[in-house]
Amino acid sequence: MSANEITQVEKIRHSLAHLLAATVTEMYPGAKNAIGPAIENGFYQDFETPSPITEDDLPKIEASMREKLKSWAEFVRKEVTPEEARKEFARNPYKLELINEFSNDTSKKITFYTSGSFIDLCRGGHVNDAKEINPHSFRLTKVSGAYWRGDQNKQQLQRIYGLAFETAEELEHYLEKLEETKKRDHRKLGEDLKLFFISESVGAGLPLLLPRGEAIKNQLMKYMRAKEEARGYQYVATPVLTQSALYERSGHASYYFENMYGTHPDEEGNVFYLKPMNCPHHHMIFEKLVESYRDLPLRLSEHAGLYRYELSGTLTGLIRMRGPITQNDSHIYVSPEQVEAEFSNVLQLFEEVYREIGVKDYWFRLSLPDFSKEKYAGTKEQWEWAGGVIRRCLQASDLPFVEGLDEAAFYGPKVDVQIKNVLGKEDSIATVQLDIVVPERMKLTYVDSEGNKQYPLVIHKSIMGAFERFMAFILEQTAGKLPLWLSPEQIRFITVNQEAETTAYAQLLLEKAEELDIRTVVDNSNESVGKKIRTAELMKVPYTVVIGQKEIEKGELSPRIRKDLVVEGRNEQSYGVDQFLQSIANEMHSRVSKSSL
Amino acid sequence: MSANEITQVEKIRHSLAHLLAATVTEMYPGAKNAIGPAIENGFYQDFETPSPITEDDLPKIEASMREKLKSWAEFVRKEVTPEEARKEFARNPYKLELINEFSNDTSKKITFYTSGSFIDLCRGGHVNDAKEINPHSFRLTKVSGAYWRGDQNKQQLQRIYGLAFETAEELEHYLEKLEETKKRDHRKLGEDLKLFFISESVGAGLPLLLPRGEAIKNQLMKYMRAKEEARGYQYVATPVLTQSALYERSGHASYYFENMYGTHPDEEGNVFYLKPMNCPHHHMIFEKLVESYRDLPLRLSEHAGLYRYELSGTLTGLIRMRGPITQNDSHIYVSPEQVEAEFSNVLQLFEEVYREIGVKDYWFRLSLPDFSKEKYAGTKEQWEWAGGVIRRCLQASDLPFVEGLDEAAFYGPKVDVQIKNVLGKEDSIATVQLDIVVPERMKLTYVDSEGNKQYPLVIHKSIMGAFERFMAFILEQTAGKLPLWLSPEQIRFITVNQEAETTAYAQLLLEKAEELDIRTVVDNSNESVGKKIRTAELMKVPYTVVIGQKEIEKGELSPRIRKDLVVEGRNEQSYGVDQFLQSIANEMHSRVSKSSL
Repeated sequence: MSANEITQVEKIRHSLAHLLAATVTEMYPGAKNAIGPAIENGFYQDFETPSPITEDDLPKIEASMREKLKSWAEFVRKEVTPEEARKEFARNPYKLELINEFSNDTSKKITFYTSGSFIDLCRGGHVNDAKEINPHSFRLTKVSGAYWRGDQNKQQLQRIYGLAFETAEELEHYLEKLEETKKRDHRKLGEDLKLFFISESVGAGLPLLLPRGEAIKNQLMKYMRAKEEARGYQYVATPVLTQSALYERSGHASYYFENMYGTHPDEEGNVFYLKPMNCPHHHMIFEKLVESYRDLPLRLSEHAGLYRYELSGTLTGLIRMRGPITQNDSHIYVSPEQVEAEFSNVLQLFEEVYREIGVKDYWFRLSLPDFSKEKYAGTKEQWEWAGGVIRRCLQASDLPFVEGLDEAAFYGPKVDVQIKNVLGKEDSIATVQLDIVVPERMKLTYVDSEGNKQYPLVIHKSIMGAFERFMAFILEQTAGKLPLWLSPEQIRFITVNQEAETTAYAQLLLEKAEELDIRTVVDNSNESVGKKIRTAELMKVPYTVVIGQKEIEKGELSPRIRKDLVVEGRNEQSYGVDQFLQSIANEMHSRVSKSSL
Repeated sequence: MSANEITQVEKIRHSLAHLLAATVTEMYPGAKNAIGPAIENGFYQDFETPSPITEDDLPKIEASMREKLKSWAEFVRKEVTPEEARKEFARNPYKLELINEFSNDTSKKITFYTSGSFIDLCRGGHVNDAKEINPHSFRLTKVSGAYWRGDQNKQQLQRIYGLAFETAEELEHYLEKLEETKKRDHRKLGEDLKLFFISESVGAGLPLLLPRGEAIKNQLMKYMRAKEEARGYQYVATPVLTQSALYERSGHASYYFENMYGTHPDEEGNVFYLKPMNCPHHHMIFEKLVESYRDLPLRLSEHAGLYRYELSGTLTGLIRMRGPITQNDSHIYVSPEQVEAEFSNVLQLFEEVYREIGVKDYWFRLSLPDFSKEKYAGTKEQWEWAGGVIRRCLQASDLPFVEGLDEAAFYGPKVDVQIKNVLGKEDSIATVQLDIVVPERMKLTYVDSEGNKQYPLVIHKSIMGAFERFMAFILEQTAGKLPLWLSPEQIRFITVNQEAETTAYAQLLLEKAEELDIRTVVDNSNESVGKKIRTAELMKVPYTVVIGQKEIEKGELSPRIRKDLVVEGRNEQSYGVDQFLQSIANEMHSRVSKSSL
């Protein structure tokens, strides 16, 4: 099958657009259909209607479509002259506009397709017979506004969207996945679990992390810092606000200025930018710290908030934002002799972190330059050498990888870490790059063992990418049921009443838990125990413990364990206070994915 | 003595300015003296000279001054007419300008003062007799440029500065203090100890923290976070980049815009500012999290990098900078019934932190409004109530405090924490404020126990102020000899040779130390042991341990302890490896100020 051949499911989708047009123009006299193509997972059809169609009308339209489908058989093609076409669509200005365009191009024939009694101006791509359409494999989903030909100076139309598949099971499956995706959308979880929000006063794309969201980000940052420090990375802190001079020196200016926030000149005439990446700042630190090969490798890390201009229409929660994009950023400066070992160390760190955190089914994508496009700095030999280094490291790592052309950074080949998101789509979550260009451009040098000045190589690495985006990824993967060590609230104590003794005991337990650094909440509100338990469930708290007279007297706790953490075959039972808290502390530190109780 | 009476030391200083003028005009024929007042710690005199005077000339001038002083006796005052004055100073345009001004004001007499053969136009304020000047109690210190009458459109003059006191001992003492201050200047320490630097490409007032500097800041931040979390503070994370709308809503716009960095409008026309404070962002979080009195108190904290525009001439290392100013910032939202207890808790936290960290000799300054100036929002009753609350908390705290008028914030009274810096000058390092204005202005409300909407009070607190500035303060107080827990490098292992066995053993020790989170360095360079020890001393490393054959064989270490950490009466001796490392780890966690060995 060639890439341009129309698949059966696309034919079904396109045919359904005809069926929708036939149904609406019949149900709403005076309605005029414009265009109606097959799209991913379904189809749409645009209409001019005498009165607005709302989503409440869709079930009725859908039912009429099924009814009409019974009477449809084959799609009959007919070539017509422009005159014939104009006569048929005399009252449809959209079709007339298209007919006029087609008639100017004599290489194209004007064709009608008819099914049942419905005639449409169309190029084809239908099922042969309407019987090929399963009446239970489609569903109308929404109505939105659309301008004729996408031009906001032209007539505004109504667009009706539908989902369509070959079988009812496929539709069902897709709807389930969609439902699941909605539940897992990190923006919804962010709201429900009180993790973050966007404030109109602060601005679009500039989320504020609430205490529960900050707790997750902070755990991720602490975890990465410990991992990196153990491997000899050193942390630095550099300003967000930076004079334009630095970006001119690094060469980023020509690539990035349109995505950077620039300030008004100050009283002294200086113009500053908000940094969209840390590289040039770290290069300044290299200059300050490195004299000779003895100072290499130098591994610098920073968890800095970056800012990038993005159009408001593209902003998506914590995944695509203007800032702060808190990059888990490192730059490793090496001599050519060190690059292979150091690059392999980085791959090992990826493997270690993803294994511990539970990121599964990821693979690496090595991006090499497409030299036919000539947009790369440096020589072809340098690029080939660098690509070879990375390929050998990937091969030695046992990690799955693919290669691709033309996604390399301007300064060197890169490796992206690819995962499948909740909808099954491929997405990059992290990156490691080998920079063979910028040190020479910025005149960053060290003296080698023979006393000669050399340019170092720079490995740019980010294991978690941006912490905010990684948080969104984990939220969607887990549907908000975060592993214990990342849960903003790890234990909730629920009091059965608000008597002094109960309250005091819950407070005592809270203090004991906090001594072990367990993030703990007491719900001493004036609600029923049942309601309090349901609230804890909605907040996806790993361990919920009810505190009443029995618990106080016996000094034992009977925790309720969040379902996904329960190990099959084990029962929830009672534990001594210290035993319970110590188990939770151990479980938290070991980052296991199941309850230790 | 009234405030305007001239003290003896001021008379000495002013008389020395005459002596300097007499000496220079005699030594440099054609030199013309302009003005020469007493200043803090000394005096200066401005000159127009035929050829430049350099600092190398100062000892010679100083010697001539001492010689001339012998011949000087009393300062003789004489009233003169403008004509007499013009005649005497016919060749000195500066004096002529002054004489013309004086002669326009008939209320003022024109007077000459003469000592030895030197006559000057002067208002008085000298010693009666030049014998009152100790010839060893003054010192010329520097030459700089100065414009006549401070106007850069006028003649440029040379200004010679001198120090002067009543006794030689006072001069000696001041010079020692100055020397010590220079050594303790955090900018010098920052360079010597590789803590931070300013990069021309990044910009003035925008320091970059090197790994060693970041380590100190990180320890301070971790310490404060642990302290605050234990007291129920919750951390949040809010963006630096913020739409102007927020500052208009909070009322900060009219007070702060000139010190804020604003961006160019983006494609969508939005203008953003870099936040110079966190308050309005935290108020947005209050709105999101608080519904009723049950949600109070809400204690929000953030260690956010702030940015403020400062003229480049005022920038001073980490003390006065453009950013990031990483504020140890909290906002506590309380009901009126909670404010006193919560404010007292904050004072307790100050006391606890400063005691543990070793900040001594600090006091609180309660700043109340001067109502005669009418620049305050809110009513006089509110301010008096708020001032009363704070005064009661301070009185109950046993901490020393003073009261002052007219330094309050625009939104309420504040308490500053005052210390004396290395030069003995008073300085503020931290603040706590009671906000009685902004919640009403921003319509921040909660529902009280009777169902009525109320405005909360906000306590703004910062225990360490900006972490960068606090770091500078501690560096200057300790002359860079940081306590163990804050030292960027805590142990240095020095190898006696670069043989495989020695190197491997040093590496093993490093790993053992790092397992205990001790910040450790191995110096395995090809230098002599003596030189390596001196380098470690210069870097002010608390514990230095030489590793040779003996240490490897015996498994014992003989640490050298930085002098200020040594407890008198204890000797440096040998320790088993684990014993040594465990002691250091314990000392680090307990934050004691002396060695535990």
